[in-house]
Amino acid sequence: MKIVTSATDLADGCAFVPTMGALHQGHASLFKLAREKSDFVVASIFVNPMQFEDQEEASKYPRTPERDIELAKESGVTHLWLPTYEEIYPEGFAKRSASALGDIYEGASRSGHFDGVVTVVARLFQLVRARIAIFGEKDFQQLTLIRKLVHELNSDIEVISAPTIREADGLAMSSRNVRLDETSRERSLVLYRALTAAAHSSDLDSARTSLLLIAGSQEGFSLDYAEIIDERDFSKAIDTTLNKRAIIAGWLNGVRLIDNMEMKLGDVR
Amino acid sequence: MKIVTSATDLADGCAFVPTMGALHQGHASLFKLAREKSDFVVASIFVNPMQFEDQEEASKYPRTPERDIELAKESGVTHLWLPTYEEIYPEGFAKRSASALGDIYEGASRSGHFDGVVTVVARLFQLVRARIAIFGEKDFQQLTLIRKLVHELNSDIEVISAPTIREADGLAMSSRNVRLDETSRERSLVLYRALTAAAHSSDLDSARTSLLLIAGSQEGFSLDYAEIIDERDFSKAIDTTLNKRAIIAGWLNGVRLIDNMEMKLGDVR
Repeated sequence: MKIVTSATDLADGCAFVPTMGALHQGHASLFKLAREKSDFVVASIFVNPMQFEDQEEASKYPRTPERDIELAKESGVTHLWLPTYEEIYPEGFAKRSASALGDIYEGASRSGHFDGVVTVVARLFQLVRARIAIFGEKDFQQLTLIRKLVHELNSDIEVISAPTIREADGLAMSSRNVRLDETSRERSLVLYRALTAAAHSSDLDSARTSLLLIAGSQEGFSLDYAEIIDERDFSKAIDTTLNKRAIIAGWLNGVRLIDNMEMKLGDVR
Repeated sequence: MKIVTSATDLADGCAFVPTMGALHQGHASLFKLAREKSDFVVASIFVNPMQFEDQEEASKYPRTPERDIELAKESGVTHLWLPTYEEIYPEGFAKRSASALGDIYEGASRSGHFDGVVTVVARLFQLVRARIAIFGEKDFQQLTLIRKLVHELNSDIEVISAPTIREADGLAMSSRNVRLDETSRERSLVLYRALTAAAHSSDLDSARTSLLLIAGSQEGFSLDYAEIIDERDFSKAIDTTLNKRAIIAGWLNGVRLIDNMEMKLGDVR
């Protein structure tokens, strides 16, 4: 029981963390942040078929319900919501379209992916009525699209982002990592190495060179994209861009991995 | 952690139980009911000076903060709110006026009492934004005025009432009971006896007769009022009145006691 003297401390509303399950320590960090912000933490687990290009891919998405329930409970979730398909997509429910930002990078490689993401997130927001929603920075393009969505919806939900959680060697935590075989797991460090080199380069040109050079030199890694972008709209960063971010994606033995890192141009490593 | 599959089960909002503290099992029953309705139970403790005729009476109102905290915690309160005077009554805050119903019975004996009640409840509702508010039936006139208030405010808060909790011998639980000396405590059964006789009378006339006869025959009990009323507006009940209730109030050695009971006309005791 919480004892407060001000109604402001009382009205902490609900903090919402939408997920697709297969929860890991990255999700746990989102739940813990949510719990710091509110006593009422709703996490949803819904493997959204609409955001997969083909349904075989959706069916291959890892599912670990028992572990998810344990991890959610331990990390401060008060309400775990496992919606049915019918609740999310009632008959006649209209698909939303992501803006132009939804067609580049992740959107270019995964046709319709971001339409599915904004559609499901808009619907989840409609059903949960949270004060705060928390998303990881690992899916940075998704995060940017969701901020745009909230603006479009004229919603007063506050979108909070949380830093990417990494394995000890630097690999960004992801539900897909369990699908990496031993060799691919070793090779997966290419993303972190390329991003770190770029982030700590002295200027933009050398950052791009490092990024592509490292990404291109890893055996077995099939690069999709690697770029330094403007965080606002994912246009190519120029010297005067205020917030630059390095982004990268590719495949290792059929497993898609993505990552990103804030640029620290001029820092000495 | 609660696991749900429907957003409806999720959106249980906040259940609010406003109190003046000196909590007893009557309050505990309200908290438990609130907890059945919601995972988020706010109880407030605020001895509202505006609803006391003179401030000496307000200062004599029993205060048991340590026990209150224990009882609230044990009874399912998740948020205990102890507002400051300044938060409830910011400078220039306007007093509300209770309707004509605020001037009769309890209102006639306690000038300005119900103006104070509706003012503080409207303010509490404004600050808490609950989905449900729970009040005891023991203060039945107050309950009726609060239902009217919610209607006036055009609020979508749902007012739920809960039955009076009684000591084993029938005395309605009240924070004021601690002020009864041993003799008065014995004599206090007059209210329950009068109400029970009335409630189980065969017709309205004999109900009124029993009520007044019993209320008038108790040594030391100074009757304020005893009547059978229409629950909707507290007008005198007639035979065709749908919901009749017996109400009674008076003093025992300076302590004001009130009680009421639903009429069971025609029942055999």
